Amino acid sequence: MVAQQDPERAVATASAPKGTLNAARWSEILDAAAAVFTEKGYGAARIEDIAARVGILKGSLYYYIESKEDLLYALTVDGHTKGLATIAEDDEARAADAPSRLGSFIMRWMAMVPTTGEYAQMTERDVRLLSDERRATVMEMRNQMHRYLRGIIEQGIAAGHFDPATDPGVATNSLFELLNSTVRWFRPTGRLSNDDLAAFYKTFVLRGLRPA
Amino acid sequence: MVAQQDPERAVATASAPKGTLNAARWSEILDAAAAVFTEKGYGAARIEDIAARVGILKGSLYYYIESKEDLLYALTVDGHTKGLATIAEDDEARAADAPSRLGSFIMRWMAMVPTTGEYAQMTERDVRLLSDERRATVMEMRNQMHRYLRGIIEQGIAAGHFDPATDPGVATNSLFELLNSTVRWFRPTGRLSNDDLAAFYKTFVLRGLRPA
Repeated sequence: MVAQQDPERAVATASAPKGTLNAARWSEILDAAAAVFTEKGYGAARIEDIAARVGILKGSLYYYIESKEDLLYALTVDGHTKGLATIAEDDEARAADAPSRLGSFIMRWMAMVPTTGEYAQMTERDVRLLSDERRATVMEMRNQMHRYLRGIIEQGIAAGHFDPATDPGVATNSLFELLNSTVRWFRPTGRLSNDDLAAFYKTFVLRGLRPA
Repeated sequence: MVAQQDPERAVATASAPKGTLNAARWSEILDAAAAVFTEKGYGAARIEDIAARVGILKGSLYYYIESKEDLLYALTVDGHTKGLATIAEDDEARAADAPSRLGSFIMRWMAMVPTTGEYAQMTERDVRLLSDERRATVMEMRNQMHRYLRGIIEQGIAAGHFDPATDPGVATNSLFELLNSTVRWFRPTGRLSNDDLAAFYKTFVLRGLRPA
C-alpha cells in the first residue's frame, strides 16, 4: 500500500490491501489493529500482537500490509470515509435553510458515530503519526467535512438564523468536538438511545446558535 | 510514592515526591514526562527518555519516583486538582440562580483549561492505565466535578431556567467534553483570545439549555 494523495484512491486502497483479497480477513485485521492500538498505544503496539489477536502468523499479516502504519492509515481513512458520506445532500436538502440543514446533519453524523466505534478517538489522535503524504490525504478529507459544516453556519448567520457574533470556525470545531466526544462516555441503554442523544444535540445546538 | 485513596493526601503526594524536595526540578520532570507520554504514548515512553529530556541520569529520576506510573499519577492528580479548584464558590455565588452559576463556572473552567496544557488529553485517556486504587482516587476527584455541574443543571431545570427535557447526566458530560475539547484545536491568536472563546461557550450553552 503506497500513500495516496487523492482521497478516492486512498479509500479504494484502504479497503483493498496488496495481497489477493480476503475481505473478511482484512476486516478482522483492521478490528484487531484498532483494538491493539487503543490498548497499547500505536507506538507500543507490535505487529505480532495484532497477528496473534486475529490468530494468524506475523508473516501472514505481511501478506496484507507492508508496515504497521498501513494499518493506522487504513483505519483512519475508513473512519473519515464514513464521515464524508454524511455530508452528502440531495438538491432539496441543499436548498433548505441553515437550521434545517444543520439539524439533519447532526442526526446523520450521530447515526454514523457509533459505526466508527471507540477507535475514532485513536485515529483522530494518531493521524499525526502518519507520513506527511498520508496525513495530508486525511487532513483534506477532514477539511471537506469542516468546509461543509462551516458553510451551513455561515449561511445561517447571513440569513439571520444564527447569532452574527458567532465565529464560524470556532463553532465548526466545537460542534465536531461535541458530537464526536460521545464515543468517550456514552453507551446506549434502555433509558437513553443514540437517537435520543442525537435529538438532544440537535435541540441544544440549534438553540445555542440562535441570535440573542 | 504509594497509592492514596484520599484525594487531599494524593494531591500532597503528587507535589511532594519521595526524595528530599527540589520543587523546581520535580516540576521539570513532570513537564518532561507529559511531553514524552504525549509524543510516544505512555506504553512506549521510557524513563530514560524522560530523564534525558530533563538532562539528568535515569538513576537521579528514581530519586523522585519508584515507577513510570508515579509520573502519570502525579500529572493526573495535578490536572484534576486544578479542575477541583474551579468548583469552589463563596456563599453569594452558591446562592445565585443556575444560569448565573453555570455562566461563572464556564468562565472559571475555561480560564483553567489552558493551564493544564495539551497534556490534559493524555491524562484523561491514560487514567485507565493507573492501578485500581489510584484510578479510584482520580475518578472520585472527577466525580466531585461532575456532581457540581450536574447539581447546577438540575437546579436550573427545577427552577424553569433550563429545558425540562434535558437529561442532567448527558448535559454534564457534554459540557465537560465541549469545554475540554478546546485544547485539541484552539490556539489563542490576536483575532480570538481564550476569553473570547469562553464567552462564546457561555452564550452558546446558556441559550442551548433554555426551555423551548
